[in-house]
Amino acid sequence: MKPSIPKGTRDFSPTEVAQRSYISNIIKSSFENFGFQPIETPSFENSSTLMGKYGDEGDRLIFKILNSGDFLLKMKDDFNDYNLFSKFLIRFYSDAIFKIRKKNDLNISELSIENKRESIERYLLDTLNFSINNASKHYSKFENFFKTFFKEKKEILVDIVIDNIDKDIDIKEHLFFKSNVFSYYTSEVLKNNSTKISEKALRYDLTVPFARYVAQHQNDISFPFKRYQIQPVWRADRPQKGRFREFYQCDADVVGSKSLLQEVEFVQLYDDVFTKLKLKDTNIKINNRKILSGIAEIIGASDKLIDFTVALDKLDKIGAEGVTKEMLSKGITEEAIEKVQPLFNFTGTNKEKLIQLKETLSTSDQGLEGVADLQFVIDAVESLGLQTSILEIDVTLARGLNYYTGAIYEVSAPEGIKMGSIGGGGRYDDLTGMFNLKDVSGIGISFGLDRIYLVLEELNLFDEVVLPKPKVLFLNFDETTNLSALKAIKVLRENNIKSELYPDTASSNKKEKKQWKYVSNRGIEFVVSKIENNQFVLKKMSDGEQKKCSLSELINTVQ
Amino acid sequence: MKPSIPKGTRDFSPTEVAQRSYISNIIKSSFENFGFQPIETPSFENSSTLMGKYGDEGDRLIFKILNSGDFLLKMKDDFNDYNLFSKFLIRFYSDAIFKIRKKNDLNISELSIENKRESIERYLLDTLNFSINNASKHYSKFENFFKTFFKEKKEILVDIVIDNIDKDIDIKEHLFFKSNVFSYYTSEVLKNNSTKISEKALRYDLTVPFARYVAQHQNDISFPFKRYQIQPVWRADRPQKGRFREFYQCDADVVGSKSLLQEVEFVQLYDDVFTKLKLKDTNIKINNRKILSGIAEIIGASDKLIDFTVALDKLDKIGAEGVTKEMLSKGITEEAIEKVQPLFNFTGTNKEKLIQLKETLSTSDQGLEGVADLQFVIDAVESLGLQTSILEIDVTLARGLNYYTGAIYEVSAPEGIKMGSIGGGGRYDDLTGMFNLKDVSGIGISFGLDRIYLVLEELNLFDEVVLPKPKVLFLNFDETTNLSALKAIKVLRENNIKSELYPDTASSNKKEKKQWKYVSNRGIEFVVSKIENNQFVLKKMSDGEQKKCSLSELINTVQ
Repeated sequence: MKPSIPKGTRDFSPTEVAQRSYISNIIKSSFENFGFQPIETPSFENSSTLMGKYGDEGDRLIFKILNSGDFLLKMKDDFNDYNLFSKFLIRFYSDAIFKIRKKNDLNISELSIENKRESIERYLLDTLNFSINNASKHYSKFENFFKTFFKEKKEILVDIVIDNIDKDIDIKEHLFFKSNVFSYYTSEVLKNNSTKISEKALRYDLTVPFARYVAQHQNDISFPFKRYQIQPVWRADRPQKGRFREFYQCDADVVGSKSLLQEVEFVQLYDDVFTKLKLKDTNIKINNRKILSGIAEIIGASDKLIDFTVALDKLDKIGAEGVTKEMLSKGITEEAIEKVQPLFNFTGTNKEKLIQLKETLSTSDQGLEGVADLQFVIDAVESLGLQTSILEIDVTLARGLNYYTGAIYEVSAPEGIKMGSIGGGGRYDDLTGMFNLKDVSGIGISFGLDRIYLVLEELNLFDEVVLPKPKVLFLNFDETTNLSALKAIKVLRENNIKSELYPDTASSNKKEKKQWKYVSNRGIEFVVSKIENNQFVLKKMSDGEQKKCSLSELINTVQ
Repeated sequence: MKPSIPKGTRDFSPTEVAQRSYISNIIKSSFENFGFQPIETPSFENSSTLMGKYGDEGDRLIFKILNSGDFLLKMKDDFNDYNLFSKFLIRFYSDAIFKIRKKNDLNISELSIENKRESIERYLLDTLNFSINNASKHYSKFENFFKTFFKEKKEILVDIVIDNIDKDIDIKEHLFFKSNVFSYYTSEVLKNNSTKISEKALRYDLTVPFARYVAQHQNDISFPFKRYQIQPVWRADRPQKGRFREFYQCDADVVGSKSLLQEVEFVQLYDDVFTKLKLKDTNIKINNRKILSGIAEIIGASDKLIDFTVALDKLDKIGAEGVTKEMLSKGITEEAIEKVQPLFNFTGTNKEKLIQLKETLSTSDQGLEGVADLQFVIDAVESLGLQTSILEIDVTLARGLNYYTGAIYEVSAPEGIKMGSIGGGGRYDDLTGMFNLKDVSGIGISFGLDRIYLVLEELNLFDEVVLPKPKVLFLNFDETTNLSALKAIKVLRENNIKSELYPDTASSNKKEKKQWKYVSNRGIEFVVSKIENNQFVLKKMSDGEQKKCSLSELINTVQ
């Protein structure tokens, strides 16, 4: 078997782990510096917690986990019932037809279609009741299914019976194969099995599990609750550059307060992290859902807000013409699109944009509220100053998620780096509502660790990352000094100096060379090549300088 | 919907995350101090990587992930083929019987059983080929199945045909329902679907993924390769105290060297971690697989080694009598058990145990090799000294996993704490063999983070863990000073002093009280209650001392 991993997943080498830890440690320290507390939630949640929260598209991308136990065996039993069920059905129909013939005491073809319908239907209903009541323990399994089926499909059944009743064929076989009873039954079995098959699913993001956490532990939480969470999420998306099936999200959220000060703080938090990562000129785009609603109101298409924002969001990708076309196709009028045209070319400073927005939205209360919110954030951030990031109003920013109700953020990498957003977030006024905890407003942002990694890599910003490797390697050329080496290493480690002994004693020149090669491969700084009378021959690899020294001198030299 | 999480999984509160990080950080720092490098592997692997590596029991406990896409729809299609298949089969058998009758031009009951057998068999073989070649596109789907089925089940088929051929029943229906063809077909569909349904599974441990990693990346690795890995694993085990469905393993392994120095180093590593965790008198039990093999050899039951070790492993739980009983039931002779009786009461110092073992195993080369290995480790560890742990030879130690070939470790919590093993490991001479990388010896140990957590909790060893919380909280009683507060907080954070502003401005006495309550709930040390003329009213919560100070005085005070 050739070893491989599932597509869209990755192994991380020691270097990559160190570089990824470098990023997540910076994010973590900023989160904590800003007063956020860590929580963790399970990798998989009950399906009912996740399903239906991300739209149809999201639901499809959720990785579902098979129930434990031998689910295949359970399935098999259900499909074996198929045989019993088919037998039951065949008997039932043969009976029906036989009895109708007998009852009417005439050739069934002489009956009018309507009469036939009636008598078959009546008979089916009567017999159904009887058959079910007298069904054996096996048949009783089908009772509910059959009742439902009969109710829904009666028309079809009657037709099938009528269609075939006069034909010179084996009615049993015909009925059996021609009816869609079995197809229907199959669906039913599979539908019933879907919870038997899977009741758990891998986390799709950190927001819904967080909402679930808050609702579940509401009595143990001091609100406002500032939490952060750095954990992997899984999506069955088509893998491509910067899009993986397992990736890390780093989320910070506050729940329990509507204060706009938090909108300000999250901008500072983005700036803080990206500055510490030496990622300059990061573009923090901000918008407000109320502004989008206001725009929709102005153009008289409030009911088409989602269509509108989804189309507007594509401005970068498909241009004004494409957006117009999409809006028209969604039933937004040409006249309405005309009114919003100025926003397709929305430039200038944030202050200029705010003035323009205030004008455009002057007749929409909601729109003006959004402008005021944005104004507060823009003013506060300007007064506080950002270290290296740029905050920019972007009215095309809508993001896919439908639960945002106030601020919307999205962060793109510095200009020139081709990468989707490296962060995003926003305010959602009723996040925990889906878990029956009402009126809890939340706001949060997310950092996309994996994409940030790719950006830092492209910009060569990993230079200073220290890889975990021993500072001192004791070569193993002489078995008799191994114990002395181990004793020295013990002391070094007590002094927090990473050190190790090459495990195999070299029995040849070639094997000695192998040890030297190991030293260079791992980029080890210091090497002890010999131990004699408690003296250590220490070599500094960078300049080849070599000296004999005591253990305490050794410690002082390498520390 | 009442929010909940799947059984066997847990949410971790900020306090728990901090306590868990405390443990994993200590483990991580020891790992790195000992020269191990971190890697990470994906949460899910290809099923083929995991299945068959952990025994039948293990396979059952692996969480399988449903393939993405609408797998239910795909399944439905396959089960709809069932109808077509059944039709095909019925026609086939009717044909067979009809033609045999015709060909023989006699009542089939007149044929002798043997003749019947022969002619039916020949006909089935001929017709089968014909039918398959001329099969419609639907039938062609069954070709391979049918060929296999026919090959395996020919006897049964022929019997069914013979059984029913003379009976006055509807042979078609009878065959259809009575044969086990459909049951077989169902299994086949499900088996074929098992890859359609699931091709990925959640990691069960870190050892097999590591072996896969080494084989896959062998060209990028410098051997000996010392790696550590701290990641969650998932097992569909019955949840109970100390046993979860999602839990963390912390593994350190070396591959590419058979040196016994590593056996010594892992004992030191255990000692180092548990000492740093202040977990004193941890019992590191050690054994060697060769000793177990030697014992089996001595008692003449080499072929029953696994039975023997599994039984011996239960000594603690079921006592000598139970072990004897189990060994007898497995076919190990009374005489053999007699020979091994001394090991059922195996006490004394490690040196004494070694002497006893050398004697008992004197006629087994493998056994003596195991004793020598153990002697080396015991001597070296004694010479180096352990900080707080106890190393103890335990010949009952076998552990469930069958791949150990040399040293076997298991760590139990200090006496008096009821908890399964909190760590374990050993040497496996051909770990990567399953991935076609031969002759690579590995040795490794694992720490069970979740059980260690429970032990530390029981012993109250979390006292010193620092929870992530702000050092200074700025109360929000006056909206007009919010911006000044944010400015001060910005400077505090630049000085790495965790601080935050309560987000909502208190509009009443009650709301002010709420903020004070938040301070006490979160155990915050310093509070700024008022800002006036760039002076901050700072209160130290522990003694209630309050003073007015400048920002730089504030920083100096809280730092």
